[in-house]
Amino acid sequence: MQRITKTVEVDLGDRSYPIHIGAGLLDDPELYTRHICGRQVLVVSNEVVAPLYLERVTTALSGFQCEAVVLPDGEKFKTLEVWQGVFDALLRHRFSRQCTIVALGGGVVGDMAGFAAASYQRGINFIQVPTTLLAQVDSSVGGKTGVNHPLGKNMIGAFHQPLCVIADTETLNTLDDRQLSAGVAEVIKYGLINDPEFFAWLEDNISLLLARDPEALAFAIERSCIDKANVVAADELEVGQRALLNLGHTFGHAIETGMGYGEWLHGEAVAAGICMAARFSVVQGWMNSKDERRIIDLVDRSQLPTKPPGALQAEKIMELMAVDKKVLDGRLRLVLLQGIGKSVVTDRFDLGQLRNTLNSY
Amino acid sequence: MQRITKTVEVDLGDRSYPIHIGAGLLDDPELYTRHICGRQVLVVSNEVVAPLYLERVTTALSGFQCEAVVLPDGEKFKTLEVWQGVFDALLRHRFSRQCTIVALGGGVVGDMAGFAAASYQRGINFIQVPTTLLAQVDSSVGGKTGVNHPLGKNMIGAFHQPLCVIADTETLNTLDDRQLSAGVAEVIKYGLINDPEFFAWLEDNISLLLARDPEALAFAIERSCIDKANVVAADELEVGQRALLNLGHTFGHAIETGMGYGEWLHGEAVAAGICMAARFSVVQGWMNSKDERRIIDLVDRSQLPTKPPGALQAEKIMELMAVDKKVLDGRLRLVLLQGIGKSVVTDRFDLGQLRNTLNSY
Repeated sequence: MQRITKTVEVDLGDRSYPIHIGAGLLDDPELYTRHICGRQVLVVSNEVVAPLYLERVTTALSGFQCEAVVLPDGEKFKTLEVWQGVFDALLRHRFSRQCTIVALGGGVVGDMAGFAAASYQRGINFIQVPTTLLAQVDSSVGGKTGVNHPLGKNMIGAFHQPLCVIADTETLNTLDDRQLSAGVAEVIKYGLINDPEFFAWLEDNISLLLARDPEALAFAIERSCIDKANVVAADELEVGQRALLNLGHTFGHAIETGMGYGEWLHGEAVAAGICMAARFSVVQGWMNSKDERRIIDLVDRSQLPTKPPGALQAEKIMELMAVDKKVLDGRLRLVLLQGIGKSVVTDRFDLGQLRNTLNSY
Repeated sequence: MQRITKTVEVDLGDRSYPIHIGAGLLDDPELYTRHICGRQVLVVSNEVVAPLYLERVTTALSGFQCEAVVLPDGEKFKTLEVWQGVFDALLRHRFSRQCTIVALGGGVVGDMAGFAAASYQRGINFIQVPTTLLAQVDSSVGGKTGVNHPLGKNMIGAFHQPLCVIADTETLNTLDDRQLSAGVAEVIKYGLINDPEFFAWLEDNISLLLARDPEALAFAIERSCIDKANVVAADELEVGQRALLNLGHTFGHAIETGMGYGEWLHGEAVAAGICMAARFSVVQGWMNSKDERRIIDLVDRSQLPTKPPGALQAEKIMELMAVDKKVLDGRLRLVLLQGIGKSVVTDRFDLGQLRNTLNSY
């Protein structure tokens, strides 16, 4: 049986790695043995994903000394305290520097397991097995790992590239609709940043995607990974263009932090953030309102929010954005749009107009 | 006034940096402005060092937005919890990714501040200003940063190189005798690893060193930094020869963990560990007992312990060593001696003989 349908290469010199995309890849032992060097493997998962897939993965890893740790589920558990539990497991099992962590779950599991891999004994290997659309198209690609701080999202972390990413599209069948839509937010983002053709494809195929058509899903994941891999390969450590991937995220992080982690899904906050960036871009006179309309329509058809939560005051959003990582020596930078597929990172905007735009919701 | 006496370059490609060694360097503004890019600086110090030197350093940094955080003093506070306090300070002051951390203190401060710099927003700049002999000759050089876990020392951390190291030899005048001797343990280590000439110099000059003769101190610090920089440059991430720097450390970490962090100073535990490695090397028939005698004599004349604490059973030491980072896929590796200036990393030894050697104390 030919199971691997697509492989996207992330080109990072001696840290390059493949993203395997296809149906039923999760428990293919060969995909693991091809990449793992030592004989100790810790699978890090969460309490929602583990009952569904952990046994299949540990069976595929039965040639190794395989242990598992199951974390609580959700963004609000992406903390230093929960993260510490991964080290407790590694040390309890006396895992050496030659061990490998397998992250089985969504973005939260991947970020925490990846940061644990970056930090255990100053760096061990890890493999991403993302089981949500959001993780498959975004968080598992590019090596960003970390945890949240009460004062800001992803403030503590590391760049640490995996040995490979195994994106099994069948795992999306157990994803609830809300989580699927949250992933679509990041997919839309890639179209907006620099791939207008993909954005147009999404406008035509969003119903197929939401209905989990396997071919549409595989295409959208592959195209998203290619788009992201190109940006990451050009700027691994985000000294420049990689910041474009934060479209919608500065607004989105403020929403997530302001509402309390977990109230809004990350992708939902990003969707609202994309619409806010679009409106502000129109207010600044950089984009026409027809393009804004197309963006809001696609976000809305994806069952995603198009504006910030009513409970969050404009002043509070401004304040939360001021501590975002995209603040450069005191100056807030935003990713804004000059059109669909045309994005820029800039600190050249009017803070008063930004406040007015936020107040307009 | 010509104040800089010596500069040692650590050659790590685009992560290369200088170690400035000399009297009165601590508050030279030029040394800081030469290296710092942004305008925000957080000085991380501890409650013993801050009253002595913090004001001089912040005055030298008065051209920047300079804030400070003062941590509790001692190895037992080298924890994730205390480490988290550095992020609280960075975020409270809204420090951006372009800020710089200055680590002012001994090895504990340097390790925690360096790991915070490695992890804040996935990596910011930092400068080491070591104020103990141990930090000046060892922990501030080479980019190892991290914190302890209750089950093992330095188990959580990162490789993160500083912009520069500023080693002000005058700060050693406020060091107590016990701390000074602890630093000498690492100095002796460099002679043993691959510099027999330096070891012989130490045998001749140990009284001058302990009497804090400025010239002897400056020579010993420079020679130690050169020896360490050479090893680090050849193997930054410790995939091979860098492990030699762990001479005495596998035994030493077991002593520190077994006694509870802070009971024995790190250098004291390393000194005993060096003597244990020497005795085991003799037991294995690798080194003659005359060399062991020279080692024990020099350690003893340095006011350092030559054997493990009586309170620690051999079995407990064996158990603690089994979780050391030097364990390679389940096999314990040790740095052993074939003579003075001739060290090897090996897993080819008899565990029964190791147990017997530990029992002989």
